[in-house]
Amino acid sequence: MSGLAAPSKLSLAAMVVVFLLGVAGSAHGLERLVSSNSNKPCKQMTLYYHDTLYDGGNNTANATSSGVTKPTALSTSRSKNTTYFGMLAVFNDPMTVGKAMPAAGEEPAAHAQGFYFYDKQEEQNAWFGFSIVFNSTAHKGTLNLMGADIMSAKTRDISVVGGTGDFFMARGVATLSTDALVGLYYFRLRMDIKLYECYV
Amino acid sequence: MSGLAAPSKLSLAAMVVVFLLGVAGSAHGLERLVSSNSNKPCKQMTLYYHDTLYDGGNNTANATSSGVTKPTALSTSRSKNTTYFGMLAVFNDPMTVGKAMPAAGEEPAAHAQGFYFYDKQEEQNAWFGFSIVFNSTAHKGTLNLMGADIMSAKTRDISVVGGTGDFFMARGVATLSTDALVGLYYFRLRMDIKLYECYV
Amino acid sequence: MSGLAAPSKLSLAAMVVVFLLGVAGSAHGLERLVSSNSNKPCKQMTLYYHDTLYDGGNNTANATSSGVTKPTALSTSRSKNTTYFGMLAVFNDPMTVGKAMPAAGEEPAAHAQGFYFYDKQEEQNAWFGFSIVFNSTAHKGTLNLMGADIMSAKTRDISVVGGTGDFFMARGVATLSTDALVGLYYFRLRMDIKLYECYV
Repeated sequence: MSGLAAPSKLSLAAMVVVFLLGVAGSAHGLERLVSSNSNKPCKQMTLYYHDTLYDGGNNTANATSSGVTKPTALSTSRSKNTTYFGMLAVFNDPMTVGKAMPAAGEEPAAHAQGFYFYDKQEEQNAWFGFSIVFNSTAHKGTLNLMGADIMSAKTRDISVVGGTGDFFMARGVATLSTDALVGLYYFRLRMDIKLYECYV
Repeated sequence: MSGLAAPSKLSLAAMVVVFLLGVAGSAHGLERLVSSNSNKPCKQMTLYYHDTLYDGGNNTANATSSGVTKPTALSTSRSKNTTYFGMLAVFNDPMTVGKAMPAAGEEPAAHAQGFYFYDKQEEQNAWFGFSIVFNSTAHKGTLNLMGADIMSAKTRDISVVGGTGDFFMARGVATLSTDALVGLYYFRLRMDIKLYECYV
Repeated sequence: MSGLAAPSKLSLAAMVVVFLLGVAGSAHGLERLVSSNSNKPCKQMTLYYHDTLYDGGNNTANATSSGVTKPTALSTSRSKNTTYFGMLAVFNDPMTVGKAMPAAGEEPAAHAQGFYFYDKQEEQNAWFGFSIVFNSTAHKGTLNLMGADIMSAKTRDISVVGGTGDFFMARGVATLSTDALVGLYYFRLRMDIKLYECYV
């Protein structure tokens, strides 16, 4: 019989399900789940990212993010027109399920730890590398993300390239949009995170 | 019957094809395609990366890249012997299908947005993290890459760790080679990009 | 017959094995191996990472790592209380199988090339992006890693997001723990690396 004809006899769908569910007999450890289709994330969530900047000394107590490079002459000249080309910031920012900042003493849903920088002369454009660190009763573990934050686009996609703990070996895509912007003092990004590879 | 013997009855090859093609009945969304073999990329392309540096002020108008760190004493002493240890640059560089820079007003095939830095005292050695941003009729989306640019090697491989849009969830390897070098003013890298995981 | 019932007739386990082993007839190239279970890495190793810092000029000859940012006022004020918020370091550090530094003239098992930075006001907390570069008779190739180094935790997991050469297309998790710490002069991390996706 022909190879390609054979699978139809025992149902194409069934064979894919077998792969998705992994080895049924495995009692220990998480099992691998991979989306066969880009419309079907194996896990998804929306979180808001709050970046409170140091702002030249006006905001020291609350700042969770700080520019750490002294720009070169090129960057400095360009920052005059507010593209901030060459500014690198590192952060440990709260992430929340709703738009509001956590109340005093309240633990956020997660922390985003990482960096971004501005990389373009002509307009504001950024690049992000960071981890989302979960340490709550709901989730423990991390997601690792990187990608271009093309600020001229209403939404922009970056990659979830790995995960640990509850998000062991995860991969996916996060869609970013600017949700609030208060000068150089504060901005908030909405992040819609969809995972297409999970172990569950 | 023995588990291992069974698959031969309906053709090993057929079963793998089923996995590669995904669920036949899926009408919406891209479907997952994974190479079973390192010789068979699911997508490949060659692009040239053009890094035009700020060069201490001599090149401000054309620069698409700029050093953003003021090196420490260690780095400074080392940069005298041209290893640039500690120099971090951020860039938004054009990428082209051929070797020539885009003509005035011509859109490049893509932009590389990201950073590199030099990380070695004894010789020039770099590390890259960046996105290739496509926004043309041919392709829309991004590829995200990172890895060591071991400049003493004629070719060096870095990882494609994720993708979005037309390159949704892509993974692969990019082989870099230095194609041109004009002091601290300009360099061009050839990047042979092969993807082994795609959704198509 | 029902789709879900069918696979049991020819053994669930056998079908998964077929996927794990790839296409038997492929003579050229590495073949894809994916763990179906988080307890079964396809490759694992332990390496020690030795970071010898420049330390303000006291250690120039031996340093394989150097801080490259001049911290902002916020970072500076914070570095007084030793959280180093905003300090970015780049490195090309030896990695060894045992705890001892390589003897003079001895090649280490690998080099870690990349960067870390401190990202928190209240306590020391870091973030890493780097490649492990192997160039020995045992291994040639690279592993690419990134993630949060949550220093307050005894162990913390980061992601292996890609690989090249002998580690072509690898993914996994690395568990970090601080194994030694000598002020700002030297620290050693133990890294337990487990890969769950390999081509072999």
